[in-house]
Amino acid sequence: MTRHYNFCAGPAALPAAVLERARDEMLDYRGHGLSVMEMSHRAPEYVAIARQAEADLRELLAIPDHYRVLFTQGGATLQFAAVPYNLLGRGGRANFLHTGIWGSKAVAEARHLFGDAPVVASSEANGHSAVPRPDDIVLTEDAAYLHYTANETIGGLEFDFVPEAVRPDGGEVPLVCDMSSSILSGPLDVSKFGIIYAGAQKNIGPAGLVVVIVREDLLDRARPDMPSLFDYRALADAGSMINTPATYSWYLAGLVFQWLKHDIGGLAAMNAINDRKAAKLYAAIDSSELYANPIALRNRSRMNVPFVLADERLDKPFLAEADAAGLLNLKGHRSVGGMRASLYNAVPEAAVDALIAFMADFEQRRG
Amino acid sequence: MTRHYNFCAGPAALPAAVLERARDEMLDYRGHGLSVMEMSHRAPEYVAIARQAEADLRELLAIPDHYRVLFTQGGATLQFAAVPYNLLGRGGRANFLHTGIWGSKAVAEARHLFGDAPVVASSEANGHSAVPRPDDIVLTEDAAYLHYTANETIGGLEFDFVPEAVRPDGGEVPLVCDMSSSILSGPLDVSKFGIIYAGAQKNIGPAGLVVVIVREDLLDRARPDMPSLFDYRALADAGSMINTPATYSWYLAGLVFQWLKHDIGGLAAMNAINDRKAAKLYAAIDSSELYANPIALRNRSRMNVPFVLADERLDKPFLAEADAAGLLNLKGHRSVGGMRASLYNAVPEAAVDALIAFMADFEQRRG
Repeated sequence: MTRHYNFCAGPAALPAAVLERARDEMLDYRGHGLSVMEMSHRAPEYVAIARQAEADLRELLAIPDHYRVLFTQGGATLQFAAVPYNLLGRGGRANFLHTGIWGSKAVAEARHLFGDAPVVASSEANGHSAVPRPDDIVLTEDAAYLHYTANETIGGLEFDFVPEAVRPDGGEVPLVCDMSSSILSGPLDVSKFGIIYAGAQKNIGPAGLVVVIVREDLLDRARPDMPSLFDYRALADAGSMINTPATYSWYLAGLVFQWLKHDIGGLAAMNAINDRKAAKLYAAIDSSELYANPIALRNRSRMNVPFVLADERLDKPFLAEADAAGLLNLKGHRSVGGMRASLYNAVPEAAVDALIAFMADFEQRRG
Repeated sequence: MTRHYNFCAGPAALPAAVLERARDEMLDYRGHGLSVMEMSHRAPEYVAIARQAEADLRELLAIPDHYRVLFTQGGATLQFAAVPYNLLGRGGRANFLHTGIWGSKAVAEARHLFGDAPVVASSEANGHSAVPRPDDIVLTEDAAYLHYTANETIGGLEFDFVPEAVRPDGGEVPLVCDMSSSILSGPLDVSKFGIIYAGAQKNIGPAGLVVVIVREDLLDRARPDMPSLFDYRALADAGSMINTPATYSWYLAGLVFQWLKHDIGGLAAMNAINDRKAAKLYAAIDSSELYANPIALRNRSRMNVPFVLADERLDKPFLAEADAAGLLNLKGHRSVGGMRASLYNAVPEAAVDALIAFMADFEQRRG
């Protein structure tokens, strides 16, 4: 068995310790005589797994009691629809910050379903190289909520502050954040948000699971015409088990939460590791003649580090040699090209060191 | 490691050979140096897994070329919404057959979203102990499609024929079937159906995956106001990868398809095994004084065998002793009580033999 270093943007690397545990428990979960995959979601041993996962997530993120945690399906993309259905029942329009491809997909879905959805601030003018400043964010009078993408996975652009969601009349509206590619990368003040949602396949677990953290008072403003499975109130009341949830993915997420708590030591420790990993890779890029990253320093993503080579004819040999060296999935998103190294929680510091050494060696030989 | 016999209605037993393969490939998929869970859904090695799974399913069910196969998320319950969105774009009303709890949930969702949705035939009058006869099924003049549930997982009631979906004026409409708990239990004439959908967690794989088989000409009658991820046309065009699919569940489904092909020998062989399993369990029930099943002979489910004990005070000891004997999850659905033995594909004949022996012994001692 060989384990390579995996810089995939998602589905992404998982901790080897988590995979080993899942492997060892695959045919017989702790003497119960069956796999977690084979358990009824109503069985006491499965309910215990699900509840422990939620408790661990709550502890890791210090989620206040007046927030509910949902484990649902369909990816963040399904939440692009579910969020407006859940928040537009009292009228008003969704307001959006647009800082890249994922944010624009969220806007498009809100417009598709409910017509107008104003973008109230955008980084389009600077090519999504720096997020809007707090003063640039001016909500509409009828804003029902403000949505933004904390970290743009493709662009490698990350907010360095939590926006305020306040209408011109001074009224606060819920702040909604797609945190798919940065959740659990460090501590978080959940109380600033109305809704946080995240597809699992970066820092949480396998694809097919979505975590939604929603403030309790927002459970009563849904449109009545939404598909029943979108209903946060119903999901919350049913412990995310209106129907059969993605039981195995939920279990794996729980193993990741345990790993974060016990192997890493919590999110402050994870944060320090992520700081180090990103800092050394950006330093290597900035000090080279061959590699470049265009993002404003304050908005450089810790999780997704896109970079280009000065001569794009070197892209192919770079990727082929990296692959041969056991450094996988460094190709940039097909919409932007170049390279991208995703440094999620499960990517060890040794992987970043190996990447930096490879990049230096490649530059010396080919740059 | 111990493996017990698991009669769970879903999530349900998986073949041990599939779990062993998944275990062995967990940390390193065939020398690629990473888990399937860690692969990009766009990576060639993952796309090969996904395409092979589709090809094997097509082969097993002899799916004609003019049908598309989708691998999506949200359980059959999300399809209760997605189907009417995809089929009501040209007006008309959804028609339903009502033969139990799952069918009634499908009706309720169609009504919730689109108002009227007539039940054109029902087994309510006989307590869902026999499905309507073909002659009892009279569609409305404005029927857009006919929906039914091939096998009611909770009631243990299975259709012994494929209904015809013809309006009084002679016009054929699409036949839509929720086949969650009977798909792949035997050969199937897919060409009789417009849409077949099935939650994976019975005969396909782990919870969190839904397979939709849709006739190509039905991809163009969707309502424009539906959530984008419901769009069968878009899903078909994107190879079910509009966004990240449930990659690991899809892989496991593929392993199950391989097992059906190579270990079992295809669906005709599976069908024979399922016939034998169900026949011997029903025979044991019918020949006993203690156990009873109320379903009409022609509609007895091969997959879900509910039965009651003549004295319900024996329910608790029956379940406790069965559990101690390694016969798991025999408790009936909380809405109906009693017992239920689910005999999905992955439940071996030896499990049924063990259950029958236990039941006889229990009856002798306690009946």
